[in-house]
Amino acid sequence: MQASTSSSAGRPRSDLNAAVFAATLRMVDELGYAGATMDRIAAAAGTAKTTLYRRWPSKGALIIDTLLDAFSPMPALGQDRPAALAQAVRWLAAKVGEPGVGAAFAGVFSDAVNDAALRELLSTRFQEPYLIVLKDYLGESEQRIVLFIDVITGTLLHRMGMTGRPMADADVEAMIAMVLSLFE
Amino acid sequence: MQASTSSSAGRPRSDLNAAVFAATLRMVDELGYAGATMDRIAAAAGTAKTTLYRRWPSKGALIIDTLLDAFSPMPALGQDRPAALAQAVRWLAAKVGEPGVGAAFAGVFSDAVNDAALRELLSTRFQEPYLIVLKDYLGESEQRIVLFIDVITGTLLHRMGMTGRPMADADVEAMIAMVLSLFE
Repeated sequence: MQASTSSSAGRPRSDLNAAVFAATLRMVDELGYAGATMDRIAAAAGTAKTTLYRRWPSKGALIIDTLLDAFSPMPALGQDRPAALAQAVRWLAAKVGEPGVGAAFAGVFSDAVNDAALRELLSTRFQEPYLIVLKDYLGESEQRIVLFIDVITGTLLHRMGMTGRPMADADVEAMIAMVLSLFE
Repeated sequence: MQASTSSSAGRPRSDLNAAVFAATLRMVDELGYAGATMDRIAAAAGTAKTTLYRRWPSKGALIIDTLLDAFSPMPALGQDRPAALAQAVRWLAAKVGEPGVGAAFAGVFSDAVNDAALRELLSTRFQEPYLIVLKDYLGESEQRIVLFIDVITGTLLHRMGMTGRPMADADVEAMIAMVLSLFE
């Protein structure tokens, strides 16, 4: 029985992760990025702050994993390039509009401006998988794909900051028409 | 002599404002948006925290006034529309790259996602003057101008968050070519 002692003390890892990710988004949605402290997230997830810090060394690392979970799986890209990119942008816009997701996203980018370790995590864990898929799919330079990601993500987050609401569908479509000109 | 007592206790209002704005950008640049507390900004400006709160009811309000000061005056727009808009975008990109400005800008937008009062300040004090000038100049719908502002500001700030550095000139030019397609 000795072998099961440590796991019987808690929930399975995947269950705990799901509870923590849900609690993170709920706290960010209710209290804002700055207000959603590790203490409050731990309490909302029904776990100890020490347990959180064993899995995520910083709030930024937890937010990035929460976003990775919220944005998984990435939708498949069909054969028609403009239609596939439009679909991907609509998918991102809808995700950013989910409770807590836009605020968590905007908050972690803001923290990253002055935090090199967080930028490294954002770049390697969060952005790189999308960058690789889009580069393969489009056959365009990395510089152009990074600009595409900056434009769609930056625009959606700026709109959230200015209005507190996701971007209206008509504006998402206008942004899609504009951003596709990067690949013409 | 009684009448001059209160002003002789401190610096003229405009000098104090300039010292506080400079201290705000310096603290944000050194400590990040979250780390630049009202306490630290007051100490760096050589004034009392109570003095700051008499002029700015919140950190968000102080950051917005600091940014307004950093972005004044807005450059004049010449007669050639594409050239004038390109010039305005280059001006914004250079400003966002000044020490503390990009981080202050990204931080206040992130806070605003969950703070309606701050969004109101951002919208009326910060965005509206540019919106009015651009609407008059371009003769385009407000919806289109707001999208233009979201795209250029959001893209520049997202790049700062991902790289910690201002956008390279070649990317600024690619963004300009793309965003001008909104007005064709």
